[in-house]
Amino acid sequence: MRDFQYYTPTKVLFGRNTEEKTGALVKETGAKKVLIHYGTGSVIRTGLLDRVKASLEKEDIPYVLLGGVVPNPRLSKVYEGIAVCRKEKVDLILAVGGGSVIDSAKAIGYGALYDGDVWDFYCGKCKAKECLPIGVVLTLAATGSEMSSSSVITNEEGWLKRGYGSDLGRPKFAVMNPELTLTLPDYQTACGCTDILMHTMERYFTGEASMEITDSLAEGLMRTVMHNALLLKEKPYDYDARAEVMWAGSLSHNGLTGCGGDGGDWMPHKLEHELGGMFDVAHGAGLAAVWGSWARYVYRDGLTRFRSFALKVCGVKEEGSDEEIALKGILAMEQFYRAIGMPTNLRELGVEPTEDQLAEMARKCALGVGGAKGSVKVLREPDMLEILRMAL
Amino acid sequence: MRDFQYYTPTKVLFGRNTEEKTGALVKETGAKKVLIHYGTGSVIRTGLLDRVKASLEKEDIPYVLLGGVVPNPRLSKVYEGIAVCRKEKVDLILAVGGGSVIDSAKAIGYGALYDGDVWDFYCGKCKAKECLPIGVVLTLAATGSEMSSSSVITNEEGWLKRGYGSDLGRPKFAVMNPELTLTLPDYQTACGCTDILMHTMERYFTGEASMEITDSLAEGLMRTVMHNALLLKEKPYDYDARAEVMWAGSLSHNGLTGCGGDGGDWMPHKLEHELGGMFDVAHGAGLAAVWGSWARYVYRDGLTRFRSFALKVCGVKEEGSDEEIALKGILAMEQFYRAIGMPTNLRELGVEPTEDQLAEMARKCALGVGGAKGSVKVLREPDMLEILRMAL
Repeated sequence: MRDFQYYTPTKVLFGRNTEEKTGALVKETGAKKVLIHYGTGSVIRTGLLDRVKASLEKEDIPYVLLGGVVPNPRLSKVYEGIAVCRKEKVDLILAVGGGSVIDSAKAIGYGALYDGDVWDFYCGKCKAKECLPIGVVLTLAATGSEMSSSSVITNEEGWLKRGYGSDLGRPKFAVMNPELTLTLPDYQTACGCTDILMHTMERYFTGEASMEITDSLAEGLMRTVMHNALLLKEKPYDYDARAEVMWAGSLSHNGLTGCGGDGGDWMPHKLEHELGGMFDVAHGAGLAAVWGSWARYVYRDGLTRFRSFALKVCGVKEEGSDEEIALKGILAMEQFYRAIGMPTNLRELGVEPTEDQLAEMARKCALGVGGAKGSVKVLREPDMLEILRMAL
Repeated sequence: MRDFQYYTPTKVLFGRNTEEKTGALVKETGAKKVLIHYGTGSVIRTGLLDRVKASLEKEDIPYVLLGGVVPNPRLSKVYEGIAVCRKEKVDLILAVGGGSVIDSAKAIGYGALYDGDVWDFYCGKCKAKECLPIGVVLTLAATGSEMSSSSVITNEEGWLKRGYGSDLGRPKFAVMNPELTLTLPDYQTACGCTDILMHTMERYFTGEASMEITDSLAEGLMRTVMHNALLLKEKPYDYDARAEVMWAGSLSHNGLTGCGGDGGDWMPHKLEHELGGMFDVAHGAGLAAVWGSWARYVYRDGLTRFRSFALKVCGVKEEGSDEEIALKGILAMEQFYRAIGMPTNLRELGVEPTEDQLAEMARKCALGVGGAKGSVKVLREPDMLEILRMAL
């Protein structure tokens, strides 16, 4: 096991009608002017934005609005938000939405207090020293951004999708009402569950052992998400199942499932980032589409962990060789993805990249850190290309 | 499941030599003068106190010292600490020790900023509005006080042992180096493991279901602690096992294993508090001594959860009636306690209360909230007396 830092300062209010307490939570932070940041309209249609505004007004907290965040949030919108924050002297950004909105809010928070170009942080040029406080009213269980240190932004110039992580960006508070997710379409629900699972899987599949307690928490979390994702396929309006998935989403990416580990593998995420940058696919679906190919390419190098995953998470019986058990686990995971309507390859994802596009994605994916990435098995550009080809 | 708030702001530095970063962590908080609070000398003998002092000196942070905290920390020492903090204008209390030292530090933190008697908070008269920031260098895995909101103090006047909980008292940071626990005597190690287990068990055994994810995390945590407690009985110098237990100790009491639950049962703790108040026994041993009797008295009212505990935590086979399985789980837990050298009744604990003393403990235990306490089964004074008699 490795030494670690664990820091999850986000105050979570979880349950029905908790969005009505948003104003009180903002007030606790001492903020004087809020930017309410949101997406493309669903929070208006459902009346959520009005309830949040009313909650701020009740506490006499002034606010300005900036909507229009799209999935795979864009750098241009971040620049727009930075300009608004500076002009309006905003001192807290309230993200009302899912991961895209929260990630955009974090980027705005970093950029508003930085003299240079906020992309500097995302392209690895330097590290942020400050961030405006972020608050969240969560409408989608998926990215875990409501408690995490990370943020992913797409630069339209070159369609580069890049992540940046800093404890400074961890939200001060997060309001989580599972009722807000009851009406989500099946596909989005399944994408969210996949993303949640993958945040723990990325930390679970590593080249070295982490901690027994971390593994046991991770395995329990993954079993819970799989069970409830299948429940939601049958009963999308089940509050309890929505709540299980929503809370798992936060715990899956707040650091808990990585304590003592090496930081995780993250190759499925990195490959999906290239897919998402080039084709604008849903993040969760992209992850499901590449995971099986990645797993089959690397599992021999992480046989112990793939075997444990099969036995403890996928319910595979302890029969046959370690390799057979590991492969049965990968198969079981792909069957689970299909059962919740997720793709297990690029064709099912609805994407047919040319060989040139595959090569371009592999090339971009290998950029930085000497071109060698991953933990279960260290991969280079030719490995990445091969996995993408396998995923066709 | 119930709505919940989750708030664990403590920044944890976990691993070897992390105590050397204490000064840097204090500096991050902006504190100008520190009270170093500790126990009865082991931190001096091991040189830990010197290393912590050196770390503060390196950052030019002045400090004053107050040692002498005993197990079941006393109110008189808290008063002494409050006086020192006021006189010396201390703005951060650094607890170097285990749960007793941390609990004493929290009480001093509340009292230093309060005009009245700090016991007001512990006897339920009113709630604290402020607390001096607390930092921790942990030397014992047990109470989880390093991340928790709670603090337990014994008032020598009447030997009342009472707890108070507030998010204001949650430490700002905690330095956790498992190496500092390598030389602990077996008995103290076993007491710590029992306390850790019981923090999750109190939240797990409830009258209503919490969340599937919370149960699965709790079960994984309990399995991990039991496994590593047995390992440590054989190999006390095993760093990894010490680390598993230390991190489990924090997660067991920081709120994670109670999310969505009803707040827990806490009757074993309440009964032990009376034992500890009257006989000054080790907290963990006291818990082990009363748990079996409590469990046998209440299990029929919580059969589903006692059955799950037997199957998922204690490894009992799924054979026989629910009641048989539940009883086998209780028996397995008592066997585990014996295996790590813990008592399973008062005689084994080395305590032989008279009938009058039993009645006195039951009477004190039932004080407040109309005398009805517990979740699996609501207990009143006669129930408490009966459980204490069963535990003889």
